[in-house]
Amino acid sequence: MSTFSFRLEHTDGRARAGRISTPHGEIETPIFMPVGTVGSVKTLSPLELTECGAQIILGNTYHLYLRPGTEVLERFGGLAAFSSWKKPTLTDSGGFQVFSLAGLNKITEEGVSFRSHLDGSPLFLNPETSIKIQESIGADIIMSFDECIPFPSSREYVLKSVDRTARWAERGKAAKTRGDQALFGIVQGGVYEDMRMRSAGQITSIGFDGYSIGGLAVGEEIPRMYEICGYTADLLPRDKPRYLMGVGTPEDLLNCIGLGVDMFDCVMPTRNARNGTLFTSRGRLHIKRLDNALSDEPVDPECGCYTCRNFSRGYLRHLYKAGELLALRLNSLHNAAFYLSLVKNARNAIRKGVFSGFKSEALEKMKIGGLK
Amino acid sequence: MSTFSFRLEHTDGRARAGRISTPHGEIETPIFMPVGTVGSVKTLSPLELTECGAQIILGNTYHLYLRPGTEVLERFGGLAAFSSWKKPTLTDSGGFQVFSLAGLNKITEEGVSFRSHLDGSPLFLNPETSIKIQESIGADIIMSFDECIPFPSSREYVLKSVDRTARWAERGKAAKTRGDQALFGIVQGGVYEDMRMRSAGQITSIGFDGYSIGGLAVGEEIPRMYEICGYTADLLPRDKPRYLMGVGTPEDLLNCIGLGVDMFDCVMPTRNARNGTLFTSRGRLHIKRLDNALSDEPVDPECGCYTCRNFSRGYLRHLYKAGELLALRLNSLHNAAFYLSLVKNARNAIRKGVFSGFKSEALEKMKIGGLK
Repeated sequence: MSTFSFRLEHTDGRARAGRISTPHGEIETPIFMPVGTVGSVKTLSPLELTECGAQIILGNTYHLYLRPGTEVLERFGGLAAFSSWKKPTLTDSGGFQVFSLAGLNKITEEGVSFRSHLDGSPLFLNPETSIKIQESIGADIIMSFDECIPFPSSREYVLKSVDRTARWAERGKAAKTRGDQALFGIVQGGVYEDMRMRSAGQITSIGFDGYSIGGLAVGEEIPRMYEICGYTADLLPRDKPRYLMGVGTPEDLLNCIGLGVDMFDCVMPTRNARNGTLFTSRGRLHIKRLDNALSDEPVDPECGCYTCRNFSRGYLRHLYKAGELLALRLNSLHNAAFYLSLVKNARNAIRKGVFSGFKSEALEKMKIGGLK
Repeated sequence: MSTFSFRLEHTDGRARAGRISTPHGEIETPIFMPVGTVGSVKTLSPLELTECGAQIILGNTYHLYLRPGTEVLERFGGLAAFSSWKKPTLTDSGGFQVFSLAGLNKITEEGVSFRSHLDGSPLFLNPETSIKIQESIGADIIMSFDECIPFPSSREYVLKSVDRTARWAERGKAAKTRGDQALFGIVQGGVYEDMRMRSAGQITSIGFDGYSIGGLAVGEEIPRMYEICGYTADLLPRDKPRYLMGVGTPEDLLNCIGLGVDMFDCVMPTRNARNGTLFTSRGRLHIKRLDNALSDEPVDPECGCYTCRNFSRGYLRHLYKAGELLALRLNSLHNAAFYLSLVKNARNAIRKGVFSGFKSEALEKMKIGGLK
């Protein structure tokens, strides 16, 4: 018995606001999911994530499979309990990392052979083992094992891959044993509309608790990404959540919410924070720059996060330049808070039926900049 | 006009409990001061430090002089305002780092020439410039410029150095211009009782707001360190705070509180945390060890810090092994909380007149261990 459900509460053009229920609580959509790759959202504590509005955290199956491994995760009752995260979690299938990060791999109908990026040891993942590992991790929402098709790929290759991903989706659904986890199917198809339609048809006819749009933001032009995203979203059932995997910039989130996407994840806010790039309502701020040295302004005057409430750009620049770990924390906290506040504002705009104006204004402000 | 004062409230044998007043608030003694080397206590936020009981933070004059430099610090109204720390701060004189960390130096009567450990650039520090930099940093308590005598040193060298440190102390006191900062004199003298007596006589006759015991825990045996510490503490005026610089382990704190020391600082809790060593009521815990992998116990069942309230040894080990920055934070937070809780418990024991029993029991428990 699954306690998973989705209620679509408002629409505003193609944009949607809704509510997902899971065994660990509700998630208001559209939502951004901070990425806790190896069991923590890098540099941030669960308390901070909660305070800045995180409702669900993503864990990477591939990374968690390598470390700490399923034995440890099962011993502690799954990732959420292990990491002291009291709200919902979601895992990817491991597919993306196997194709992008791990040592090359052989793809067969059966599954994928690859090598650990840590020690080169040979590993194998298929739809059944992916589900099995995700059951050990125990997230509220899990993913079908798929191939994330590289860009560019020929239509011929995409066709072959999309059909195999559909067969893998079916195998994964059959392999699932836990009743308290929702399973999402992943629509692939590269940048070919007809392939996206083919994949969406296959995956929705198998039937899942929600639908992911995979294989975007892998190298194609951004306008093309939006076209394919919107086209694919329109092919998905209204009454299920739609998750655009691994995307993206603040601008991407606003645009894709406008195309009917409900869920996002991306390492960008935390990774860029560690590289000194901060997202703000007025565009990117490169904290390392000398002209921040004497600035007593907060990173973003519109932001209410702990970093912006307490610290100046001058202090953050000093910490960053001096290599202080607190810099990485305070930067990450701000970027996470910014992303979560952005989707919250988008939700509220949709609920009020003013999303289109909200989006244009927010995008315009980010473009104008005005930050050092 | 200085708003600095010290009130000795309780004695229990040689142990003392008191209260220091500063322009940024009160400090209950005995106290441990977390070290914020370059403008942050490594990995920790001011909020966390406050929550785990920090009452005063130490900044390193040498490091802050190099980065961010006095221009930036003055622009922001000093270190406390710059780093958003609302409570008292203390700075060392820069002497210790000049002698221990910077590229070799030439000591003359005038001062010390040395090279930056960052870029090798030639620098010069003397009693007047040390005070001037410390006035820019703006801590509530500042230190006289001294030579931290290396161990071992000949009596002949120590005599020469002690006399020069006394002349430097006099020059520093004369150079001081701000009325809102308390100035401490530093007693040196190596491991020679008569030199400690000579130095204590010189420094106390100049007259300072408090007295530091410098040049200990630099290589001498621990029992000898305690002997010299107790001997020197007994030479200092009852009505001024006594600060044992750069010391030490939890055992050192307990023993030296028992010898009449009021203030301590050390990088050990934060540095060891980053190396995976956690201090607990039952001794050291090496979090990396395999036998923590499946442990759902907290680091220290007697500790009430955020780390111990929320995370298992198994999770902390995983984070540490996976190189997650959150590991360094959670470890540092625990060690800081442990040190601060230790001095708080010592204070309470002194107030109740039961310090000796408290100390023996705590030391015994740390020795027995029982931790993996």
